[in-house]
Amino acid sequence: MTTPAILTLNAGSSSLKFAMYHAQTEALLARGQVDRIGPDATLSMKDADGAALPVAPGPLCNHDDAVAQVLASLRGAFPDARAIAIGHRIVHGGIFHDRPVMLDAAMLDELRALSPFAPLHQPHNLDGVRAAMEAYPGVPQIACFDTAFHRNQPFVNDTFALPRRFYDRGVRRFGFHGLSYEYVSGELARIAPTLAAGRVVIAHLGNGASMCAVQHGRSVASTMGFSALDGLPMGTRCGQLDPGAVLYLMQQEGLPPDEIADLLYTQSGLLGLSGISNDMRELEASDHPHAREAIDYYVFRLQRELGGMAAAMGGVDALVFCGGIGENSRLIRARVCERTEWMGIELDHSRNQDNAPVISTAFSRTTIMVIPTDEELVIARAARKMIGA
Amino acid sequence: MTTPAILTLNAGSSSLKFAMYHAQTEALLARGQVDRIGPDATLSMKDADGAALPVAPGPLCNHDDAVAQVLASLRGAFPDARAIAIGHRIVHGGIFHDRPVMLDAAMLDELRALSPFAPLHQPHNLDGVRAAMEAYPGVPQIACFDTAFHRNQPFVNDTFALPRRFYDRGVRRFGFHGLSYEYVSGELARIAPTLAAGRVVIAHLGNGASMCAVQHGRSVASTMGFSALDGLPMGTRCGQLDPGAVLYLMQQEGLPPDEIADLLYTQSGLLGLSGISNDMRELEASDHPHAREAIDYYVFRLQRELGGMAAAMGGVDALVFCGGIGENSRLIRARVCERTEWMGIELDHSRNQDNAPVISTAFSRTTIMVIPTDEELVIARAARKMIGA
Repeated sequence: MTTPAILTLNAGSSSLKFAMYHAQTEALLARGQVDRIGPDATLSMKDADGAALPVAPGPLCNHDDAVAQVLASLRGAFPDARAIAIGHRIVHGGIFHDRPVMLDAAMLDELRALSPFAPLHQPHNLDGVRAAMEAYPGVPQIACFDTAFHRNQPFVNDTFALPRRFYDRGVRRFGFHGLSYEYVSGELARIAPTLAAGRVVIAHLGNGASMCAVQHGRSVASTMGFSALDGLPMGTRCGQLDPGAVLYLMQQEGLPPDEIADLLYTQSGLLGLSGISNDMRELEASDHPHAREAIDYYVFRLQRELGGMAAAMGGVDALVFCGGIGENSRLIRARVCERTEWMGIELDHSRNQDNAPVISTAFSRTTIMVIPTDEELVIARAARKMIGA
Repeated sequence: MTTPAILTLNAGSSSLKFAMYHAQTEALLARGQVDRIGPDATLSMKDADGAALPVAPGPLCNHDDAVAQVLASLRGAFPDARAIAIGHRIVHGGIFHDRPVMLDAAMLDELRALSPFAPLHQPHNLDGVRAAMEAYPGVPQIACFDTAFHRNQPFVNDTFALPRRFYDRGVRRFGFHGLSYEYVSGELARIAPTLAAGRVVIAHLGNGASMCAVQHGRSVASTMGFSALDGLPMGTRCGQLDPGAVLYLMQQEGLPPDEIADLLYTQSGLLGLSGISNDMRELEASDHPHAREAIDYYVFRLQRELGGMAAAMGGVDALVFCGGIGENSRLIRARVCERTEWMGIELDHSRNQDNAPVISTAFSRTTIMVIPTDEELVIARAARKMIGA
């Protein structure tokens, strides 16, 4: 007897995250990842309790290798499991896709044509799809887009103040981290439906980071815009940056576009400002003044964007932290909630220290929560729904 | 007997604004401007009551011409006036200048070296200085910087999240419109000293536009950053724009840097979004849906940045409108103050309609005001102080 399973794949530029769920119960069977795809890659996998599972030996030199070893490892650990659908995280769904789609050759072409909008992510995402299609011919493959959750924002939050032809051809505020926002707002609706029906700011603070204003369960504004660079500072990405500064780097410092892209995506953010690390844990542990300044900047920009997200909804009823930093850093949560009484935000320091699910005081007008995000589960559910399992 | 006078010059790329004040009484004697410097230029001048004054005929083909005709016009209208100091508006004072400076050859060299930071403005400003120095040898010339008011902002509001070497060499959040903010916060201190000692957001809404958070009379944050592009959308400038969008225009659409600069500075903002006009009055008068959308965008970005400025100070005690749009557009002021009760902002619609100096309700936690700005007077006062008149 076989176990029907849903597989999720999230292929980045040098990593491949995956998970496998029981198709009927949604129970997690395993999750894991390949890091640093190439000669020094590692593959690790754990079961639902976090216990390490054995993985298949073999090369991990490219995305095809990585997908092959992941599938071999899953087959080895779960010989009775049979993938009945594979869900993929795809960073960019373009202007129209506001929900998951079934992948076929035509859809792959359509998504490949979006690569200019996300050149550092989209091609890798699609490499993962192609490899999975070859390994599992005939198994339905479903694309879940990081942009979909934001696609119905009002025009004022979707456009930039450029001539309209740019809007028409896709220079818009797409917003990202949509799978995380979908999960967290869904969880909020389950736990606290009244709050979820109001004005919610979700702060997804991981290696990438953004904030989303969610009103009546729908995204109305996001700090990320056209690319994955804008808004909050991130591990190595700059966040908000004056477009005039990019012009300056081109025109006055003579940097070629590729070097500017590399600078803004991989050398900036917490790493650039601190000169020490892109990892918030290391910065929190450091007593170097530049580490403190990088944290100060991170917190200040979060507060400023939080004010902007609240303004987009005319106030905020709930503030929800998620992502690696949001779920784990007591310091960042506490710092972000300093001097925010004017917004009705009042942190309970002892609850925050305890990593409690609700960390606001009883008197806080705004409920502050921590909800661990789970993008894989959103993908698995979408895939399951798509095939009617 | 001669009248000692202070002259102010504000030389833009294609315009030259000027004013003349009595050096002892600060009484305005005349103000005027040259528009569209070149073959089709016009020169106009008015007295303190707004009555037109005759101007000198003559060429206005370049900045030298313009300065010469302005000076000839002033001599013709005020034969007894004798300029004892000339104050100049200079857009960029670099990292160190947080107050006006006396101009000499060395200082001119220093300011010329800042041109890469403001290539569209600084050279023209300095053209005006050079022309005035030649016309008035021996008369003290004083530079007043648009960046000076912001120069002592905390590090978190001064830096971007780029590697530190960029901060060290001047890629910072300079902020502009400093002369306007200095005037308005000075007026606020005179009219309402208690408010001025608190948390004030000033919205300078002219052809250029920005907001400044002023706490205890000092600038702590601004929506403009490194260049005059960032922050609020303007007549033809884009305001906030994802740096990834600039990369996209370079890498994917293959636009050369100069074309991107031209696009962002002269074809974007209200003009770009509406496709109709860069003039808010025309947009307000239009019933074209794109005019309405451009206004909607303008208002929304203002609200979002207002939330950010309030967050930078932990709340807002006063909101002050100035600049052409801020002083005159009842519609924009009313729209910006919609859905802002959560910030304690409550507009009195009838006072707003009357263009009253205070336009908030008696119950509004935040006092909303309109204070007409006067950058020329700030320059004249600085020049007067510098020479000890």
